[in-house]
This record gives sequence, C-alpha cells and structure tokens, in this order.
Amino acid sequence: MLIRAGYNIRLETAQPTPLLALLSVHPSRNKDLVTLHRITATPDVPMYNYVDGFGNICTRLTVPEGGVTLDCDFVIRDTGAADIYAPDAPQLPIEQLPDDVLVYLLGSRYCETDRLSETAWGLFGHIRPGWDRVQAIVDFTHDHIEFGYHHARHTKTAWDAHQEQTGVCRDFAHLAIALCRCMNIPARYCTGYLGEIREPRSEAAMDFSAWFDVYLGGNWYTFDARHNRPRIGRILMARGRDATDAALTTSFGPAALTRFDVITEEVSEAGAVV
Amino acid sequence: MLIRAGYNIRLETAQPTPLLALLSVHPSRNKDLVTLHRITATPDVPMYNYVDGFGNICTRLTVPEGGVTLDCDFVIRDTGAADIYAPDAPQLPIEQLPDDVLVYLLGSRYCETDRLSETAWGLFGHIRPGWDRVQAIVDFTHDHIEFGYHHARHTKTAWDAHQEQTGVCRDFAHLAIALCRCMNIPARYCTGYLGEIREPRSEAAMDFSAWFDVYLGGNWYTFDARHNRPRIGRILMARGRDATDAALTTSFGPAALTRFDVITEEVSEAGAVV
Amino acid sequence: MLIRAGYNIRLETAQPTPLLALLSVHPSRNKDLVTLHRITATPDVPMYNYVDGFGNICTRLTVPEGGVTLDCDFVIRDTGAADIYAPDAPQLPIEQLPDDVLVYLLGSRYCETDRLSETAWGLFGHIRPGWDRVQAIVDFTHDHIEFGYHHARHTKTAWDAHQEQTGVCRDFAHLAIALCRCMNIPARYCTGYLGEIREPRSEAAMDFSAWFDVYLGGNWYTFDARHNRPRIGRILMARGRDATDAALTTSFGPAALTRFDVITEEVSEAGAVV
Amino acid sequence: MLIRAGYNIRLETAQPTPLLALLSVHPSRNKDLVTLHRITATPDVPMYNYVDGFGNICTRLTVPEGGVTLDCDFVIRDTGAADIYAPDAPQLPIEQLPDDVLVYLLGSRYCETDRLSETAWGLFGHIRPGWDRVQAIVDFTHDHIEFGYHHARHTKTAWDAHQEQTGVCRDFAHLAIALCRCMNIPARYCTGYLGEIREPRSEAAMDFSAWFDVYLGGNWYTFDARHNRPRIGRILMARGRDATDAALTTSFGPAALTRFDVITEEVSEAGAVV
Repeated sequence: MLIRAGYNIRLETAQPTPLLALLSVHPSRNKDLVTLHRITATPDVPMYNYVDGFGNICTRLTVPEGGVTLDCDFVIRDTGAADIYAPDAPQLPIEQLPDDVLVYLLGSRYCETDRLSETAWGLFGHIRPGWDRVQAIVDFTHDHIEFGYHHARHTKTAWDAHQEQTGVCRDFAHLAIALCRCMNIPARYCTGYLGEIREPRSEAAMDFSAWFDVYLGGNWYTFDARHNRPRIGRILMARGRDATDAALTTSFGPAALTRFDVITEEVSEAGAVV
Repeated sequence: MLIRAGYNIRLETAQPTPLLALLSVHPSRNKDLVTLHRITATPDVPMYNYVDGFGNICTRLTVPEGGVTLDCDFVIRDTGAADIYAPDAPQLPIEQLPDDVLVYLLGSRYCETDRLSETAWGLFGHIRPGWDRVQAIVDFTHDHIEFGYHHARHTKTAWDAHQEQTGVCRDFAHLAIALCRCMNIPARYCTGYLGEIREPRSEAAMDFSAWFDVYLGGNWYTFDARHNRPRIGRILMARGRDATDAALTTSFGPAALTRFDVITEEVSEAGAVV
Repeated sequence: MLIRAGYNIRLETAQPTPLLALLSVHPSRNKDLVTLHRITATPDVPMYNYVDGFGNICTRLTVPEGGVTLDCDFVIRDTGAADIYAPDAPQLPIEQLPDDVLVYLLGSRYCETDRLSETAWGLFGHIRPGWDRVQAIVDFTHDHIEFGYHHARHTKTAWDAHQEQTGVCRDFAHLAIALCRCMNIPARYCTGYLGEIREPRSEAAMDFSAWFDVYLGGNWYTFDARHNRPRIGRILMARGRDATDAALTTSFGPAALTRFDVITEEVSEAGAVV
Repeated sequence: MLIRAGYNIRLETAQPTPLLALLSVHPSRNKDLVTLHRITATPDVPMYNYVDGFGNICTRLTVPEGGVTLDCDFVIRDTGAADIYAPDAPQLPIEQLPDDVLVYLLGSRYCETDRLSETAWGLFGHIRPGWDRVQAIVDFTHDHIEFGYHHARHTKTAWDAHQEQTGVCRDFAHLAIALCRCMNIPARYCTGYLGEIREPRSEAAMDFSAWFDVYLGGNWYTFDARHNRPRIGRILMARGRDATDAALTTSFGPAALTRFDVITEEVSEAGAVV
C-alpha cells in the first residue's frame, strides 16, 4: 500500500526563536520512502538534523522574526497490515530484559510510576501477565478517560489524567504507559501519522497521533489506548520515554502555531487518492 | 590527594528480586583509580555491568531470597581542588548548544519545567545570564528549602519541594535543575561520594550525596544547592536527567535496606587516614 | 547445557606496559552466566572495563614490571544447539541492509576486498546468492588453506592466505570474510571459546577460536571455515571487522606470553565434568 | 570569513546501483552553516541520511539506470584561522588516552602498523615524543613521497606508498597516520574541502583533499603531510580509521564518474567572490 503524508505548519514569532522539530519520518521507515522526504522552510533558513538518544531525527533551526512555514509531502510504502495481535506474547521476567529496555520501566515526566504503582497492582495484579495484562490496561484506560481536545493541557500527566478522567490521545498513551511500567512491562511513547485509512471518515481535522509500544517476549508491540483496536498505516515519527522526548516541536521562546494541516491518505501506485 | 571510599550495603528480600545498581565510580574517573574497584556480593551471586545511555555503569543482579550484602572499598586519586569557580563562564545561546546537551533543557520526572517556568522567569529574568544567574538560582534554592531527612519522600518533585519548602539533597538539586532549565541553562543531576574532606566533621552518618552540573560556555560546571559552596573531593557515580536515571539502587520488588554504611576519607600515600 | 570455561594467561614484561584485553564474555551472553565472570589479576593491579564501538568489553590495565597472570573461571548456560542451518536465508539486496550493517561490506586491515574482488566474482558469481553462496565460499576456503600453527603470522591477511594457501583459524576466517564482502554479503569476525564438546577429543591444546558471521535475510548466521561443519557451544568473546578489532590482547610494548591455558568443557548441573 | 563550497558530480551506471555517499559537511560544522546544506539529485530519487560509527553523515540512494547528478552549493562561516600550531602539546602515555581514542592506534586497511613498526621506531624513536615527533613524521612523509595523480591506485596502502615513494594526498595521509600509530600517537584520517584560500592559485582543478588528525595532550590537531604547512579554510566532511571509512562515494556495482567539479572559495558577507 502507498500512503501520501505530510504537513504544512506555520509558527509565528515576534523575534528569532530556536526550534527543535521532530517532524521527520523515523529512520526505521527510511527504506519505505518512495519519494524524497524533505522538509522545506519558507523563508529558506538554515536547518540541520541530528539523531537523538532515542534514534529520532531532530531538526534544528532558528525561526526568523515573523515566523516560518514548514512543509513536507512524501509517499511511503506500507504493508497495509493492521497492528499485530499476538495474544501469546509472554511477559519476560525482568532478569531477561535486554539492558537497553530497562529505561522504559522507569518513571518519566508524564508517567509517574511511583504514584500509580498501588493503583496498578490493585487493578491488574490478578490478570495473567503478558498480552492479556496489557490489553486489560488498555481497556481500562480507554474506558476511564473521556476524549476531548478541550481537555488538553501541556502539563497534564498520567496521574492527572487518571484523576480527572479526561484527555487527548497523548494522555491515553501516558496513563497506559505508566500502568504498564508499574506492572514491570517496558513501555515507550510513540507519535506519528495515523490517517483514517480503510476506516469510516470522521469530521475531525487530521492531526498527528500518539500511541505506545510494549516489550513482550523479545519484541515491541503497538497498542493504542485512544482507539483500542488494531489500525492500519501508522507512520512513526518519534519515540521516547514520554511526550517530552517526542514533542513534534519544542520552541525555546514564544511561538504561535497559526496553521497546522496534516495529510495522511492512501494513494494508488499511480498516485491517485484511493 | 588520595581518597578511600566505599560502602557496605545490605538489602533484604523475601523472594528473589531483580536489582539495578549504579554503585560504581563513573567511567570518567576510571583513570584515577589507584586500587581495583570491585563490587563484592555476599552470597556471591552472578552480576554483570552495562553502560546506560548517560554513560553510567549499571550492575544487574538478582537479590537471592533472604537478601544480599554489597561491598566496595577502593582508593582513588583526586586533584584535591575545590569545585571550579568561573564567574565569566557565559550562557550560550540555544543555537550554539551541542546537540547532545539539548535533552538537559527538557522536563523530567522530578523536574517539571513546564510548571515552574513562570516562577523562574519572575525570579531570575532580571539577573545577568550565565554564572550569575545560576548562582542566583542556587542561592534561592539553598535558602528556600529547609533541609531534613524526615522531609524525604520518594515521589517528591521540584514543584513539590518548591511548594513545601522542605527536602533533602536530591530535592535541592531537583529544584535548582528545574529552575536552570526554565532559564534555558542545561542542567543534569549528579550523585556520588562527598566526604567531609578538609571540612569540620559533622555528627551525621556518611551518605552518598546529590549535586548538579550546568552547561556554560562549552563546559559543565558543578553546583551544589544543598551546601552552596565549593567542596573538595566529589567522586561522581552516576548522572542523568534527574534522580530517576541516577538512582543508586532500583529494585523490581520489595527490598528493605537494613545496612547502609558509606565511607569517604582522605588517606595518605601510605594508606593512613589523614 | 552448562559449560565451564576460563583461562590462565601469563604475560611477562621488562617494564610497565599498557594492555588492552578483550578477555570477557561478550555482553550478548551476560544473561547466560551461572556464576560470576570475573578476571583476576596477580598481582592485583587496577583494571577497568569499557565497551568499544563493536559492543565488546575491553579491559584496560598496566602490566607491572615482571608481568601479570590473568585468570578467569566461570560456568555459563548454553542451549547445546549446533550452529543454525538455514539454507533458505536469502541474501538481501544492498538497499535493504540496515545502516549499521554496511560497515561489514567494507575492506579492513586483514580483509582486502579491493584486491580479492575479481577472484571472488570469478569463483562465486555463478552460485545462487544467499546461503548457498556463503557455503560455497566456506567450502572453497576450507579446502584452499592448509591448517598449521607454524603458518601463523601476525601480519598475514586474507590476500596472503589466499596466495600462500596456509594458515590458522583466523586466516580461514579472514579469507572467507573478504570473499563474502566482495560478493556484497556482510561478514564480521568473531572470536571466543570453542571446546570439543560432544566431539571426539583431539590431541591439541585448547585455545580460543575464530569464526565469522554473515548477514542473510535479517539475521546474523555463524560459519566456521576452519571446521566447516556446525559446532556446539561457541561462547563469543569479541566481534569486529577483523582480528584487529577482536585481538584478545593488544600490548603497547613488548610482552611475552609465557603461559596460555584455556579450558572449555561441559559440566553437569552439579558441576562435574561430563 | 565566509566560504562558498559545493560540488557537481555525475555518476553513470548501466543498471540501478546502490550508492553510499559521504558528501555532507561533518556534523561538527553544522552550526557554521549560513545557508541550507542540501544535496540535490537529478533525477530526484529518494535519498536518506544516517550517522555512522565515526559521526559522519552518510547518504544512501540507488543510482537509477543511466546515472545521477549530485549537486550541492552552500555558504559556511569559518574562523579564517590557520591550522593550530601547538609545539608544546604533549604525547599522552597510553594509560591516559580516553577509551574511545584507542581504536586510532590500531591498524586498518590502508595503514599497516604491524608492517611499519620497525621502520617507524628506527626513524623516529630518537625524536622527542609529542608535537616534534609528529612533525618529524610529517616532514619525512612529505619528502619521501612524490606527488602525482597518475600514482593513484585504489588498493594502495601506507606500506605500498612507503615502498613506491609515490602517491596522492590520501597516500601521504595514510603513511603519516600509520607511522604515528606505530609510535603510539592516535591518528585518524580526514577528508573534505580545502580551497586555495589566501594561497597563490595553482592550475590544478579543484578537488576534495585528505589530511589527518593526531591526538596530543587531550585534543585532536590537524596535520597535512601533502602540503606540510598550516592552511586556512578546511571544511571537514568525513573522518575514520582510513580512506575506507571516509570514501566520498562507495558504489555497490560499476559506476563511472563522468563529471567532478568542486568549488571552495572565499566570499564576502554580500556573497561576492573575494
């Protein structure tokens, strides 16, 4: 399957403002690119990329006084397969987890494992370890939080979302991640494109999405506490311990987002929208 | 100067419990070791080391049922110089910070930059950027928090310490780190040995200590909001975004700390305590 | 299966001599250790470990005037399975190779791909790509080189071994690696313990061994051009582009190896030699 | 000082051919870019970057049947200072070298330290360690090799250049690097732009250049055995153990270089050629 994806984002600033942008496709998808993935800035200011400690491509630039428009439009190949369902994936004992996975058991800015541990063991301690336990956490999170963009708050944590019972996709992800970690299941935050491919179209404007991965039986598996069902066509952009590490833009100074158009749609091999 | 340092720690557990221990000297000090640095476990269970994403040596082991004693005793060479005082160290504009330093501007579990930003700019926005601004943050933190071991709490964050005005050395570090990051000064959490070397001896039992580094003008400099004066003989063990990453022990299951003896003392070249 | 392995090595030096030793089990086997893996030096000089760019554990020490004995003795769990036979493992087109695998297509000190390319294409260009082609290279190498310790030479390369038709296990590995790389098959050098487990015992003194891995269809597979048949119980110590990177000891100054005893033997769960 | 640099390179191929290109400015110079550094391919095939183990930016693409033109044109800020002259920079004892520098003491494809060691100690053993010794090696290499493009050979090593006494800039670098390593001075290969800035203009077509770095007293210093005098305006592109790691293009299949124009010239702040 081919997917056309991209964005047109405008940031307005009153003065030159350094920006860190995680607006590239994750390197794990580089081999699937069918056209060149290139971020264009207008005006055409210098930018350069580096790779952070999580393997994400980070773009550094200084937004000039007035602002900048960032633009990207590309085609990528996808298997078209839905998120993998692997009910037998076992939960590894901690002793068998790889060294570099352990960090995804620790707390982080938006995932207060220390505060949620008792809750987690109370709710999920009786569920069979492994896939079932993760699914129980996802079911709980999906039902516990009421979705709504007006519930979004920059400082909102898993604990807050648990108490307030409201949030957006990043809060669903944070709560489920924190609960998994409390149960000794490594979990990491993911963000990227998720179009309504082979789904009924909704009225909502397209946006990037947040989901998460858990480590079971030697592999990472995708879960989505917001949608709570397998989806097609996720295009990963960034991963990390939580939204702190995978923020699509971090501006060091005030910057207003005045345009934010995201596209993600299936196209035929000839390039037509399916 | 030679320093003898080490510890004897006992952890008691009711069942086999995986443990992650950051109880080695940091690799940046390897070349200063005069004797072999070796952690001994009693009973002699398998252990092995890996290096985490912050460059810390992490030891993995499974505490056997009943518990384990971890023991270390070594001599290390030190310059004997106090923490560097560099009042002219300039604050680099964000554009000039190295790529791998940017992560130390972001929030983390115990350093909620998003919640403290307004406070920080209100208190320190008028202070000259660079060393003076860091010193002002350290002065504020040192005065704002009342020290006391009974104020320690596992879940306590910089925000909590700011509100409650109480804490231990890790809370002093967290609050100062969070305030520095709010002011666009990269800051990282440090932990290690800090004996009362060439200091009046206090009554307190020896313990590990927490401090922090800030990145000014191309170098990392040590500050200590708990003591708020240059000290001699810090021996770094671990660094990270905050205490989450540099916890000396993280046990995955209940473990009681039933002995905790730390030594850090100057010795002569002949090995005698000075 | 349990394997007891270790060594007792003596290096004699006329003056203090820095040493780099890759004498630990590779971190990928850490989880299999049943007893503590610890290198003991006599006299007990300071040593410390770091991890090199290939993921090997490197031990640094200074051999004191007179010399040092290095000693290691441990038990490790092994599947007991022979090297994997996967005749359908396909050769990936270069475009699909992971980024970090490409370096294993390039030339290196002892693997002169530039000089052997024509030979390789002439010999193996007609063989089906993938497993069959690797096996053809291994068969050729195994038959082309006559084994003999008296043929060992520190400076001997794949090209030299090809011309002289003599060598030891490292030369077998170097020639096969160079030929694989010429045919666009990533190949890396491996060294470690390889006892005569469930093999007829030979008269030869035990030694470390050299073999190599090739990357086919998304995995690394072990081949051994010296023995040219699947073996049981390899315990990897170090990997790299060739023997330069995986030398068990590199001394920076003259050092005579005056004792070199290696053990690798199957033991029962009770610790008895099988 | 501002330098305008770039290239226009055409590779012709009879069939689609994977290419690895190290044709970007090294990340250590990213902050100096005044305009966007962007490689343009004609036709506009997909390309993507990764960072290799030496910190170089590597671009992967598949040259389509017929060929591709790669194009780059950018302006970069430079201090305008000549290569640093630091006659007091001391040679560190091996024990004090950082762990990650040790690899630059080992042999590599084009730097056969094992074969040149005796020669090196014979020639330079009596020279004061440190800067003087490096300079003596550079003087020797500069005088020993006769420069000439017709002496270039893909397989030529330091040993070959030493025997044949002829070569191009990469051979000068390889021989000097190998001799430095023999004398326990870490040395690494460098390639990039080196225009005739504030130099008398020669008749030669512009080309990329090769030089090398040595590690003395805690820093890397630039030496150039081809020119043997400090130069202005080097713009590093890639570094490694030798030319294997820093090849500007590595094609996996036949590819003819049919155009190769490089520019490197000083421009005024207004953009005019000085």
